[in-house]
Amino acid sequence: MDTGLDARIVGRGKEFFKSISGEAPSIFNKGWWTGKVMDWAMQNESFKVQLFRFVDVFPYLNTSESLSRHIREYFSGEDNDVPAVLKWGAGKADGLLGKLTSGIMEKTIRTNIEAMGRQFIVGQETKEAVKGLAKLRKDGFAFTVDLLGEATVSEEEADAYRDGYLEVLDAIEREHDKWKALPGKGGDSSLDWGFTPKVNVSIKPSALFSQAKSVDVDGSVKGIMSRLVPIYRKVMAMGGFLCIDMESLKYREMTLELYRRLRTDPEFRHYPHLSIVLQAYLRCTDHDLADLIKWARTERLPIAIRLVKGAYWDMETVVAKQNGWDVPVWTHKPESDIAFERQARVILENHDICYFACASHNIRSISSVMETAHELNVPDTRYEFQVLYGMAEPVRKGLLNVAGRVRLYCPYGDLIPGMAYLVRRLLENTANESFLRQSFADGTEMERLLENPQKTLERELAAKPAPKPDGFHEGVEGIPLFVNDAMIDFTVPEARAAFPSAIADIRSRMGGKIPLYIDGKDVFTEDVIPTTNPANYSEKLADICQAGVAEVDAALNAAERAFYIWRDVSPEDRANYLFKSAEVARRKAYELSAWQILEVGKQWDQAFHDVGEGIDFLEYYAREMLRLGRPRRMGRAPGEHNQLFYQPKGIAAVISPWNFPFAISIGMAAAAIVTGNPVVFKPSSISARVGYNLTEVFREAGLPAGVFNFCPGRSSVMGDYLIEHPKVSMICFTGSMEVGLRIQNKASVVQPGQMQCKRVIAEMGGKNAIIIDDDADLDEAVLHVLYSAFGFQGQKCSACSRVIVVEPIYERFVSRLIKAAGDIKIGPSENPANYMGPVADVTLQKNVNEYIKVAEQEGTILLKRTDIPAEGAYVPLTIVGDIQPDHRIAQEEIFGPVLAVLKAKTFDHALEIANGTRFALTGGVFSRSPEHLEKARREFRVGNLYLNRNNTGALVERQPFGGFKMSGVGSKTGGPDYLLQFMDPRCVTENTMRRGFAPIEEDDDWIA
Amino acid sequence: MDTGLDARIVGRGKEFFKSISGEAPSIFNKGWWTGKVMDWAMQNESFKVQLFRFVDVFPYLNTSESLSRHIREYFSGEDNDVPAVLKWGAGKADGLLGKLTSGIMEKTIRTNIEAMGRQFIVGQETKEAVKGLAKLRKDGFAFTVDLLGEATVSEEEADAYRDGYLEVLDAIEREHDKWKALPGKGGDSSLDWGFTPKVNVSIKPSALFSQAKSVDVDGSVKGIMSRLVPIYRKVMAMGGFLCIDMESLKYREMTLELYRRLRTDPEFRHYPHLSIVLQAYLRCTDHDLADLIKWARTERLPIAIRLVKGAYWDMETVVAKQNGWDVPVWTHKPESDIAFERQARVILENHDICYFACASHNIRSISSVMETAHELNVPDTRYEFQVLYGMAEPVRKGLLNVAGRVRLYCPYGDLIPGMAYLVRRLLENTANESFLRQSFADGTEMERLLENPQKTLERELAAKPAPKPDGFHEGVEGIPLFVNDAMIDFTVPEARAAFPSAIADIRSRMGGKIPLYIDGKDVFTEDVIPTTNPANYSEKLADICQAGVAEVDAALNAAERAFYIWRDVSPEDRANYLFKSAEVARRKAYELSAWQILEVGKQWDQAFHDVGEGIDFLEYYAREMLRLGRPRRMGRAPGEHNQLFYQPKGIAAVISPWNFPFAISIGMAAAAIVTGNPVVFKPSSISARVGYNLTEVFREAGLPAGVFNFCPGRSSVMGDYLIEHPKVSMICFTGSMEVGLRIQNKASVVQPGQMQCKRVIAEMGGKNAIIIDDDADLDEAVLHVLYSAFGFQGQKCSACSRVIVVEPIYERFVSRLIKAAGDIKIGPSENPANYMGPVADVTLQKNVNEYIKVAEQEGTILLKRTDIPAEGAYVPLTIVGDIQPDHRIAQEEIFGPVLAVLKAKTFDHALEIANGTRFALTGGVFSRSPEHLEKARREFRVGNLYLNRNNTGALVERQPFGGFKMSGVGSKTGGPDYLLQFMDPRCVTENTMRRGFAPIEEDDDWIA
Repeated sequence: MDTGLDARIVGRGKEFFKSISGEAPSIFNKGWWTGKVMDWAMQNESFKVQLFRFVDVFPYLNTSESLSRHIREYFSGEDNDVPAVLKWGAGKADGLLGKLTSGIMEKTIRTNIEAMGRQFIVGQETKEAVKGLAKLRKDGFAFTVDLLGEATVSEEEADAYRDGYLEVLDAIEREHDKWKALPGKGGDSSLDWGFTPKVNVSIKPSALFSQAKSVDVDGSVKGIMSRLVPIYRKVMAMGGFLCIDMESLKYREMTLELYRRLRTDPEFRHYPHLSIVLQAYLRCTDHDLADLIKWARTERLPIAIRLVKGAYWDMETVVAKQNGWDVPVWTHKPESDIAFERQARVILENHDICYFACASHNIRSISSVMETAHELNVPDTRYEFQVLYGMAEPVRKGLLNVAGRVRLYCPYGDLIPGMAYLVRRLLENTANESFLRQSFADGTEMERLLENPQKTLERELAAKPAPKPDGFHEGVEGIPLFVNDAMIDFTVPEARAAFPSAIADIRSRMGGKIPLYIDGKDVFTEDVIPTTNPANYSEKLADICQAGVAEVDAALNAAERAFYIWRDVSPEDRANYLFKSAEVARRKAYELSAWQILEVGKQWDQAFHDVGEGIDFLEYYAREMLRLGRPRRMGRAPGEHNQLFYQPKGIAAVISPWNFPFAISIGMAAAAIVTGNPVVFKPSSISARVGYNLTEVFREAGLPAGVFNFCPGRSSVMGDYLIEHPKVSMICFTGSMEVGLRIQNKASVVQPGQMQCKRVIAEMGGKNAIIIDDDADLDEAVLHVLYSAFGFQGQKCSACSRVIVVEPIYERFVSRLIKAAGDIKIGPSENPANYMGPVADVTLQKNVNEYIKVAEQEGTILLKRTDIPAEGAYVPLTIVGDIQPDHRIAQEEIFGPVLAVLKAKTFDHALEIANGTRFALTGGVFSRSPEHLEKARREFRVGNLYLNRNNTGALVERQPFGGFKMSGVGSKTGGPDYLLQFMDPRCVTENTMRRGFAPIEEDDDWIA
Repeated sequence: MDTGLDARIVGRGKEFFKSISGEAPSIFNKGWWTGKVMDWAMQNESFKVQLFRFVDVFPYLNTSESLSRHIREYFSGEDNDVPAVLKWGAGKADGLLGKLTSGIMEKTIRTNIEAMGRQFIVGQETKEAVKGLAKLRKDGFAFTVDLLGEATVSEEEADAYRDGYLEVLDAIEREHDKWKALPGKGGDSSLDWGFTPKVNVSIKPSALFSQAKSVDVDGSVKGIMSRLVPIYRKVMAMGGFLCIDMESLKYREMTLELYRRLRTDPEFRHYPHLSIVLQAYLRCTDHDLADLIKWARTERLPIAIRLVKGAYWDMETVVAKQNGWDVPVWTHKPESDIAFERQARVILENHDICYFACASHNIRSISSVMETAHELNVPDTRYEFQVLYGMAEPVRKGLLNVAGRVRLYCPYGDLIPGMAYLVRRLLENTANESFLRQSFADGTEMERLLENPQKTLERELAAKPAPKPDGFHEGVEGIPLFVNDAMIDFTVPEARAAFPSAIADIRSRMGGKIPLYIDGKDVFTEDVIPTTNPANYSEKLADICQAGVAEVDAALNAAERAFYIWRDVSPEDRANYLFKSAEVARRKAYELSAWQILEVGKQWDQAFHDVGEGIDFLEYYAREMLRLGRPRRMGRAPGEHNQLFYQPKGIAAVISPWNFPFAISIGMAAAAIVTGNPVVFKPSSISARVGYNLTEVFREAGLPAGVFNFCPGRSSVMGDYLIEHPKVSMICFTGSMEVGLRIQNKASVVQPGQMQCKRVIAEMGGKNAIIIDDDADLDEAVLHVLYSAFGFQGQKCSACSRVIVVEPIYERFVSRLIKAAGDIKIGPSENPANYMGPVADVTLQKNVNEYIKVAEQEGTILLKRTDIPAEGAYVPLTIVGDIQPDHRIAQEEIFGPVLAVLKAKTFDHALEIANGTRFALTGGVFSRSPEHLEKARREFRVGNLYLNRNNTGALVERQPFGGFKMSGVGSKTGGPDYLLQFMDPRCVTENTMRRGFAPIEEDDDWIA
């Protein structure tokens, strides 16, 4: 730490504070509604949550009924009254009893929230915005204008967004000649401060391409470029400045690449006024910054960087935690402040090639930049300061006074997209660690506010209690904590590279004969069935040997021999085989994924997550067995010792589907195995090569012979034989309702020599609905419905095949959905640019096409994507409207990319429709009504209900998966009750009293 | 506290100690094997347990193989060597490596344990005993002689016990004239000490009547009298003295009554030398003593009392705790000492009419008696002192010195029955609170040993930590602790009186028409079936209305309407209905029992415990629902909230058997109801009147209409209709395998309109075996097998119907079993004297008789009790030998009092036979081999295994009940997994992040 510099920074900061003493940002002004409400929110965390959520939904509340209902739902306490603070300003209209008429209260709240929103927006209309910008300039501030509305779900919306920019540029073009340049120390009097364009635009690149995704950097950059270039061209024509904003981490790589491509594009290479944003809170920014400067020097191109701390801290952290990734942001606030100072210095050191925009409201950070620039003799023309419009007014004023170069970041546009921005701003103002809150609301001491963040960090770390072994991170009672296998992170280039490489690898060695695996030995048969790539039938993955009755007998005999040993292997040892298998699968994860991509047409991420789920099952069931493997003492009576424990049922027939060919198969097999039941596994013929992956994993893990037997075979030859065999004690089946019910019936017939009642665990179909409530966040709902319905071609039992839309929002939702669905890319799943691939097999293709005919008869086709490859098992993505609840298309499971849209009068009506099938597997609700969400929790009766998110992708442990009614028997895979179904409980009672003498145990209920 | 007296007591005690200073009981003499072993046992609790258990089994270890195996199993540590202390005395034979040859070690241990046993016994043979008694008299001690062997399981054994007394009296008669009277202050020189007979006999009354039981005081007293009178007659003829010992609490009342009857019997009324024992440790003894003295004064008859502290303290406490009774003994040792002093004073105050024998080894207690007697001027001729033979030698010597009147309690007889006595003595010597241990082994200070026990108690209570709310007695997480309903306590006269009164009450009002109960209303039908008393067909209990298809429809409709409300009633509220129902049942317990006694022929206790089990189910499932009713958060990822919870399945058809007509019925119904599933209940026609009890209980508890519907009906008319009905979601069945399998098959067929897969919970039959190992305690094994096989006429699915006896013990066990079974009383269950009653119905009678014919063909009838009432559904109790494992009688469930006996070569062979049926419900093992017990735990694969006790009577929570294979589907009633089967799990996942803002919850896995 340079103590001299630090002292100067603190001194500068003190001066800064002094110069604005007594002022406060308008948002904290308690003379007004907003200030009062902010104050209350900072004191009351649950009010804050409700307030921010209410602000979020507010733009959707167009009717008086809707507004008053939401006010009540969000804010009414037990006394059925809303907090006084919200009603402030409507005092004069108080009734005799001090109660407002609801109309007046609504009006007050509406007016105030709109005013609060407008505070951060330079205008809702273009004209208003341009006027606002002119006014700011008159006050001495430069601007950069930003169009609200980053969420574009379709190319049409992306076009509109582009057009919005062109429109505001047009409007500015008509005015900007009238604007006087702001004075400064630079040379060109037509430029602001003598060196920078008056017109300055900021843009969020992801909004310019609805199909942008991190797995496809090149495609995403191209898509964005196609709309950014016209904008930049216009900016250049106007002699303006363009800044490419940095959004969440998943767009980081494409944004950096976009900047490089645009900066080096021959058309624009000569034009210097292009900036990019870096976020100091990202751990990778030091590296990105160094890279960028190095690149600029190599290219000999001047660049410009706006350095911010970052506005998505909560989200990045939550997303990382949810996905099992390292948290990408600094986890202590001072660490971001330190990074900001460090990176600012790097930029300033490179001021010859890099223009710097310091964007912070933090007076310490600003002072640091000022003093560092001074120390490094950076000319004023090489850096500027930026703050957000409507925020931190004292800071902008102070900056204007001291630096004379302040640019305001000015969003404009509709309130609806604007609310996302508003919520971020409110968060920034009210977070406990917010500099603004601490400075202007909490009255933290100046010394602390200006403290070197390195010191702050040290103090915070020292004050932090040592992490306690709370049983949660340490695991419980010696059982290691379960953690889901991490989701694939496509922001990591190595992850993206691994897929093509794994695919190429298996391609180089596939095509041979795959044997059965019985009693630990490969068994080849004459009879084989080939398995092929559904995107390209001519590509054969393997010839799969087929078990006949003799092989089933051999497998059952092997399993029986194994049973007598395996059942007495300790739970710990059995669990260890699962742990080892998980290790093997984790090591082979890309290879295992590649098989699925080629055999059933899974997309990269879908395939990887299938493998991850399989690993999770292995890890979770192993832990569950450790838990359940411990005998429990029952009761506490002295002289009596009761122990409850579990034993395996016998031999398990595992019959699995092709859609989660690894995860579901190994999940069922692992559950059976770890509980002590040897397995005879019959995979689906559609995914038999992936089925063989289980053999590969278990063999490598050293599972004893006979415990797992791989028996693919023709159902017509050996299906019933296996199910009906008296040696089979349980049947674990996942698949269609028809087959599941047939198995249950067959298994209920006791065969000669059968020694036990067969247990059937059947996970069957679904006809899953997502309800779109009238206040649903459509930016979210459209994308999640799309994913739920068409992810992996809709071939998930959890997939959404009905979307039930409440009337008032029907048109808005459906039109956006259709456009979004119209734009997704369809083609081989091998290519990560494609959103949807072929269905898994030609028979399935035929079936789906039949249902599309039914859809055409029963309803109105809203979308039918016939722009699909001619070869391979492709089917048109289809959305059908005018569907009634009793239509076949609304009742039967299709298992393909066919989505029925139903209209409901009310939310209750939607629930009624949703519950109105024989199935009860998954469901979803998009709503921002607390009462409707609560009602859905109770009354949307499905196995897995998802609120405000997609309804596929249940994770082991976190979302135990499975349904009831005709969707299944009420088991739940990956949940705490699952393994119980594989075991029979036993209780051993010992009378420990002999001759009147009973040893007393510690946990006896002995005399007090 | 009389401080003067107390000081004198302490002074006297000090003198006493002084007079014996330096001496110690021989058992603590560390110069010998016993002393060393006792010393080690007192230092090492687990060794003590093993030692006492080994001593218990020791007399059965007749072969070298058996002895060495048990030594290894009981004492070998990890180093596979037995503790050195056990081998002491065999030192000279040590091998080179310090290891004994096993032969020599065995011999050493055998010799030493026999010597230890003999130490407490005056002789094993009569002749040896009489010689021993003469020797004691020469040493100045009087005696009272006691014949070991209190456990008599048959009348033949009771006869033998009586004859043993007559034999020893004969032998004494031949000798006693030669004995000089002991000198004393009394007047008659032919009497000991001048006033008491030389011949003195103590006797345990329970041993004189194998059918003694507390429920039948009068019958028990008569049975005992029949064998005691000849003994007493002989004692009187010899001018001797008889003392009736007090045994465990269950014999207390009959012993007191026995004393009164014998004392007032015209034949003996004139003869004063009859004594009874009172136990100071019983809380009721103050009352008993006062009563006895009052009675003596009323009768104007002198009496004699031996006051002891009591030798069954552990057992009384354990039995009370296991049965849910108040602990009948003082729970603090000083309380018993206080009671002893208090009661001794009362007796001494009444010395004019009550002769006193002070029987204690406690020098404080003895001193207290001496000083109190002195204070009260009690003549020496009115009290004496007693100690046990072989115990506390210094005390007896001191007593002889000081009082001159010491009688030794002298057991004699075989080692096998003697070992029970030996274990009690070892316990008495080694217990932490033992006066002998404290005085002579631990070296406790004399002041403490002689302290007034009142003071000791106060100190102990003060030192005791306040009871901590440990979650165990308080219940867990707000759910009240579950406690089993108390067993019936027939030592309480009110309990005995309640049954005849309840029976009379229902008799006075029975006979009418019992309606169905549908939708909260009585429904009468034309069609009725009468239900009668199986002991007396002419006694009709009721005409039961019969549901047809229309009534089933009505019930299902009512249940369906109720379902839509009931499923959303909170778990707490549903649980409360069960709590209320339990309250009602508890209040009506005797009435509910009476119905079973008359309708299905249950014995009083069996009926009461059936009701108690029903109450337990209500209480337990209510608590289980409170536990399971709380949604669980799954995973801890921030921004995501997953809740796992359960919902009811739908309508439950409950089809119950007649053998536990209340418990099983209300258990299944309660489980369904509390989990939210309305019930249509079809009772067995054999117990339909008891079935109606459910209606009565639930109606009184206020259960809403339609939640419980009572639908008795003919299976042929409505059985399949109910099972196959599409509205039925689950079928809870308990009954035969045939019906259970049929239901499973029927339920697997999906009917038109059916919306769910039906769940069948089927508890079916058993063919339960008890294994008798070669070291089994036959005193226990015979009685427990008897109860397991013939309790409630063998009509329990848990009943023992095979006893598998290991060869070496076969003859001894079987002969005792047959004799015991030959003596039990058979007749109406209404009469508590009867052990066995009629089977429940004439069809069952026919079935059992058919099986008896099979038994006669397949094996050799060992016992067939044809001495049964001619009227009513009686069947002969039958035991059949020479049965092979594959015989029908060894494979098929009979459900009646027919027991097959099978011989096994080894314990492993016995296990193989035991496991060799299609059933796996209950099993039992009587063994004292630690390894065999451990092996049985693992390999005796049944739902409920019982070690060293009967295998019926599973208690809710303590012994979750149910089997697998063809015995059931692996559910366990009354266990922690039971309710899960009645519900479908649901998981609701909420994405709590909106606009990048996620409220962080306390249990989130947020950043550290």
